[in-house]
Amino acid sequence: MSKETYATLLERLNEASDIGGVLSLLGWDQQTIMPANGAPIRANRMATLTKILDEKFSSSELQTLFDGLEEYEQGLPFDSDEASIIRVARRDYRKNRLVPTDLKVALMNASNEGYGAWVEARAASDFDMLKPYLENTVALQKDAIRHIRDADDTFDEDYDVLLNDYEPGLTSSEVTRVFDDLKAATVPLVDRVRDRADKVDDSLVHGEFPIEIQERTVLKVARQLGFTDDAWRLDVTQHPFASSPGIDDIRITTRYHEDFLNPAWFGTMHEFGHGLYEHGVSKNLERTPLARGASMAFHESQSRMWENLIGRGRPFWTWALPVLKEAYPDQFATANEDDIYRAVNKLGPSLIRVEADELTYNLHIILRFEIERDLFSGKIKVADLPDAWNESIRQYLGLEVPNAAEGVLQDVHWGLGLFGYFSTYALGNVVSLQLWERIRRELPDLDGQTAAGEFETLRGWLKENIHQHGRKYTPKELLDRVVGADRFDAAPLVTYLAAKVDDLYGA
Amino acid sequence: MSKETYATLLERLNEASDIGGVLSLLGWDQQTIMPANGAPIRANRMATLTKILDEKFSSSELQTLFDGLEEYEQGLPFDSDEASIIRVARRDYRKNRLVPTDLKVALMNASNEGYGAWVEARAASDFDMLKPYLENTVALQKDAIRHIRDADDTFDEDYDVLLNDYEPGLTSSEVTRVFDDLKAATVPLVDRVRDRADKVDDSLVHGEFPIEIQERTVLKVARQLGFTDDAWRLDVTQHPFASSPGIDDIRITTRYHEDFLNPAWFGTMHEFGHGLYEHGVSKNLERTPLARGASMAFHESQSRMWENLIGRGRPFWTWALPVLKEAYPDQFATANEDDIYRAVNKLGPSLIRVEADELTYNLHIILRFEIERDLFSGKIKVADLPDAWNESIRQYLGLEVPNAAEGVLQDVHWGLGLFGYFSTYALGNVVSLQLWERIRRELPDLDGQTAAGEFETLRGWLKENIHQHGRKYTPKELLDRVVGADRFDAAPLVTYLAAKVDDLYGA
Repeated sequence: MSKETYATLLERLNEASDIGGVLSLLGWDQQTIMPANGAPIRANRMATLTKILDEKFSSSELQTLFDGLEEYEQGLPFDSDEASIIRVARRDYRKNRLVPTDLKVALMNASNEGYGAWVEARAASDFDMLKPYLENTVALQKDAIRHIRDADDTFDEDYDVLLNDYEPGLTSSEVTRVFDDLKAATVPLVDRVRDRADKVDDSLVHGEFPIEIQERTVLKVARQLGFTDDAWRLDVTQHPFASSPGIDDIRITTRYHEDFLNPAWFGTMHEFGHGLYEHGVSKNLERTPLARGASMAFHESQSRMWENLIGRGRPFWTWALPVLKEAYPDQFATANEDDIYRAVNKLGPSLIRVEADELTYNLHIILRFEIERDLFSGKIKVADLPDAWNESIRQYLGLEVPNAAEGVLQDVHWGLGLFGYFSTYALGNVVSLQLWERIRRELPDLDGQTAAGEFETLRGWLKENIHQHGRKYTPKELLDRVVGADRFDAAPLVTYLAAKVDDLYGA
Repeated sequence: MSKETYATLLERLNEASDIGGVLSLLGWDQQTIMPANGAPIRANRMATLTKILDEKFSSSELQTLFDGLEEYEQGLPFDSDEASIIRVARRDYRKNRLVPTDLKVALMNASNEGYGAWVEARAASDFDMLKPYLENTVALQKDAIRHIRDADDTFDEDYDVLLNDYEPGLTSSEVTRVFDDLKAATVPLVDRVRDRADKVDDSLVHGEFPIEIQERTVLKVARQLGFTDDAWRLDVTQHPFASSPGIDDIRITTRYHEDFLNPAWFGTMHEFGHGLYEHGVSKNLERTPLARGASMAFHESQSRMWENLIGRGRPFWTWALPVLKEAYPDQFATANEDDIYRAVNKLGPSLIRVEADELTYNLHIILRFEIERDLFSGKIKVADLPDAWNESIRQYLGLEVPNAAEGVLQDVHWGLGLFGYFSTYALGNVVSLQLWERIRRELPDLDGQTAAGEFETLRGWLKENIHQHGRKYTPKELLDRVVGADRFDAAPLVTYLAAKVDDLYGA
């Protein structure tokens, strides 16, 4: 009987996964190759599928199925596919049902309107143009949080509910602990780098790089890392992302700057990391809610690993410098591995998060987290955001913010209502180093393989230990399995960053 | 009250249209740019959406809405958007509900299996490998026909039900009448062409045509016809088609032969015609069942018009020959307009439908129609198909079929269960000339504009008279509106073909 109930549940989850996979393809198409005038009807198509998905995933039939499967689930091993599918789907379902449909629609509308307002406010560099939209969004978010906390007493504070959208089980206090450690170590490193800015010359990666050559080159890199034409695509977009309409249909995107090598090169390696994660999920989990990454931080740990720990490490350039020399013979004629290693690792404070380096990037995130937490605890109001922003930039990076466009208005996230999301970027860096310590212990020849452009062993390790599980484990369960500690720990990242600063700028 | 009922109906139809539009995008992606390994999960995604669409479009709620709107509809002008949406949607709904879901699923499975069997049978040139699948498909089709005829006594014979899937209101007797006229006139023309084969030299369009130059060239042609980057895409596929995920999101496809100019050149003009039709539907009809062409024959009339009546006409080459001269200076150095006009109009009997010329193409269709009609009237059985095929090819084209792959197995349609479809190709040619006569009367300067590469007036006429209406009118209603006669008439096509043969091969 429970076998049949499970089969029915699985059928419903398969349908939901199919709609989700289609939405991911529609979004990919919209942001890469869709003719511009297709935008309005595409928005309608996506809204309809989103509505159908929400209807299907709020049905009371699902509640009956989950209730009928409790005993069945308890008889299965915790990490069996079946038990995990039931467990994770039930968790998603509960959370989804707690917020009334009307409120979800209001949040989606606020997000759409907020996006439009943000585009205009940023163009005018005028925070007041965005302010009423943010106030509306925050009020709606607080309403949704109230619905969830009324029914679920596991949260310590409002903001935890938002964090949990992206990082199940994470608390604001825990993020604060990790970020305080990271901040305390990073701010002095930034000061040291600022005083010795002329130690590192990055002129090698600035110059003339024709786009058609960049396209060929980054595709060559991606293929060396593990991109294959039978299961991947690489396309151009304005704000790069990775998307997976299926485990064997992975679509990564990048963008090209004609005068700067880094965005396409490291952007492609970054998105490759996201894509490889979803491509590595066990085929047994396809068409289930488990066929994604464990969390946003885990996802980001994978993209940052390929972008930074591989891509900005010394060994990689043994393989990669000849690629650049062949692609741009003039620019790289006399460059050696140390030159390119230093050029791609220039550090220093700057105003814009997406252009920030490995060291200062985390501070951009930490200040956003602190502001969001204060906003949802009531310590500050939407109107206070610009001042809070400017003060943190001054304090952490030693810079003055000249205007709102280069300050509080630079990111789209708040306009879209994505509060709670930013933290996962820096937590991804934290996790990537926690994993990296373990990987380096278990794969003693990693540097040699990387220098030879061989990534099969690393890919195998990641698939075996992380990717295959999809969302089977919470981030903390997965951390515990892989590194033997169920907590985020900034120490490995701090050690890594300090060593890099020592290496590049002197101790 | 009825206003509200209509609003509810429209909401349901909007949802159905959204799912349909998404399916069209998924199909386009699958056949153009999807990584190969994405195929299995894509099939799942599409099956789920198809199922949801069918569920939504069979709900008894819709019946209640249609019933509640009868009086409301009668109070509206016949050709108002509202009345037309109700009328067409009701007709679709009735037909959809008459076939039980189980049978629809069985037909879909038979189609999938039949496709696989056809691929293998054609590769082996062995009709017996396909035979049991066709027998199964035909039996299922007859079952579906029985369900429909039990509830609807408007059909004279079984095969009419199949025709109506593509051409609402059309009967087998009417097709027979039109095709008999066409056949009687065409067979002697084919004989004349066969005896004078050396009158036309087509070596100009055979040669070396690098694909990247072809790509640039056909895009230039498409843009001249009316393709704009903000609402159209042109991509590569194996079996070209046009798709419209939205009225302003038109995707046409083509394929390139390195040694033959015609497939990409005329294929692009052909698909442009299909795309322009759907791009011209009134925006008021977007997200309704009316946002497509009136019928397959009307659709084909548009594609054939651009491909043949424009593309293979003399005036067009005044504009187009310089394009070829610029793209392939060596090949076309000494060619004049008459040379290229003759080269793209070489006629003569051949075995393969998709490679057939304007004259013989219709005979390929007529023999398929005759065989299908006999198959569904019980006059012949599936086992008789190869003999019936070979005999017709002998009689109409004077050729011997050397093997099944070049004979009865050449097309995918029957493997897929698409009986009743073929006729629309030749009916499209018939309609294109019925329209063309009217257009030439109403646009006296058409040849001059065509020679100058100016198509705005023609596009405007087509939009005004045909495209904007979408599916508002049945094919016969539309014919009546546009040419003043509610019947398909082969005479204009026969006159056109005879004049072309006279011109090219002598009277």
